[in-house]
Amino acid sequence: MSKALGWCLVCTCLLIPLVVADWNILKLSRNGFKISLKNYCESWRMNVELHNIRDFEVVPEECIEYIGKYMKSTQYKVDSERAIEECLVYLSTSCNLKKDGRDAWIFDIDDTLLSTVPYYKNNQYGGNKLNVTSLEQWMRKGKAPALDHSLKLFNELKSRGIQIILITARREHLRSATIDNLLNVGYYGWTRIFFRDTANEFVSVKKYKSDVRREVMNGGYRIWGILGDQYSSIEGIPSPRRTFKLPNPMYYVS
Amino acid sequence: MSKALGWCLVCTCLLIPLVVADWNILKLSRNGFKISLKNYCESWRMNVELHNIRDFEVVPEECIEYIGKYMKSTQYKVDSERAIEECLVYLSTSCNLKKDGRDAWIFDIDDTLLSTVPYYKNNQYGGNKLNVTSLEQWMRKGKAPALDHSLKLFNELKSRGIQIILITARREHLRSATIDNLLNVGYYGWTRIFFRDTANEFVSVKKYKSDVRREVMNGGYRIWGILGDQYSSIEGIPSPRRTFKLPNPMYYVS
Repeated sequence: MSKALGWCLVCTCLLIPLVVADWNILKLSRNGFKISLKNYCESWRMNVELHNIRDFEVVPEECIEYIGKYMKSTQYKVDSERAIEECLVYLSTSCNLKKDGRDAWIFDIDDTLLSTVPYYKNNQYGGNKLNVTSLEQWMRKGKAPALDHSLKLFNELKSRGIQIILITARREHLRSATIDNLLNVGYYGWTRIFFRDTANEFVSVKKYKSDVRREVMNGGYRIWGILGDQYSSIEGIPSPRRTFKLPNPMYYVS
Repeated sequence: MSKALGWCLVCTCLLIPLVVADWNILKLSRNGFKISLKNYCESWRMNVELHNIRDFEVVPEECIEYIGKYMKSTQYKVDSERAIEECLVYLSTSCNLKKDGRDAWIFDIDDTLLSTVPYYKNNQYGGNKLNVTSLEQWMRKGKAPALDHSLKLFNELKSRGIQIILITARREHLRSATIDNLLNVGYYGWTRIFFRDTANEFVSVKKYKSDVRREVMNGGYRIWGILGDQYSSIEGIPSPRRTFKLPNPMYYVS
């Protein structure tokens, strides 16, 4: 520790930031105040969620341990649960449902209804660059667990007669495995489910999801809300009345 | 402590959430897992930043201490600094400036350029309901300090020849006090500064700021980015190319 502090002092003179793997060792921010690796990684995660950091391909190497801890933590569960509670508050206080079969809600699937954490656990929690083949192989097994809080919201929406529409960036060839997976963990009774086909495989996910949303809205549905873990699931025109974002610092989909 | 734990056990049986002021005492989330007050308040803060929690009038009473600690912490500084760093990365990698005097950047003022933390420190860090008269009295003194990272960005933008446009929800009668305050802490050389006048005092801040943005863009400016601490400063049509949000869990402006 004193050796590490010595290094910090050297760095203070040189004004070079020091990044080390020990959780408690100090590091310098650019403005010269001392920060820990935990400060650094927490600010990385916060700025991902604020949508200030975009298009990252991997979790920074020095933050893999921190992000892994977060994804396994009570905090991740509580953060997600609170997002769902806000959906329920909104439903009860601000949605004047018409109950004509046209009230609708959109869900993303991965890390919104189903968790990919078991896959990413074996892939450095986003510290490894995405390998689509290996991820799709895992998805084909249909073993993704449900996110419990999301399942609760899903069932609540159904019980209120709201049509549930699933829009996923998963490709068409994963359709039956995905549907089996959803059913196996308790999701059933949705109205529409959209997968990416070859025609929209080369546009951004944000554009693809916005286009599907337009199609759905042109079909007469009132989209009361969207729940997703990526800004590409909830941003873009046309906009729904409200959007809700679950935390996800493991990867970025544009 | 054992008495408190005893209460928790009683609550476990009744499945009633328990909110207490001791940092380490356990509380039950709705799904039955045990969480600390820190978990609870951290998820509140995260969901404010995710824009899942909106329109709150005060910081929840049980989180005042937590939010106060955050606002005084290194973490708040590091989170803000990282947001500014991302602005600088974006400027250097993604902005093909035309350098014709029409490249522009928009800033909000409060808790973006100037800090209101000294005021909120005496008002429970957002735990007291907003008193406009007392806040404006404080603003009129012109003693708000600069947010150092923002001043750095401000100067960097100026040095690149980007026009700086300030759009604040402060009212016209604060114009001279605000300008004096900005100059005193080192901000100078902006191109335009907009205050709310009586005509737009009764529309939402989001609508007012979007309308000003339209006026600015119709005037031929290319808005490369906006920096603000509220979603009402950065959302709405017309959109700029990029938006950046600073953390602020003390209050919400719609």
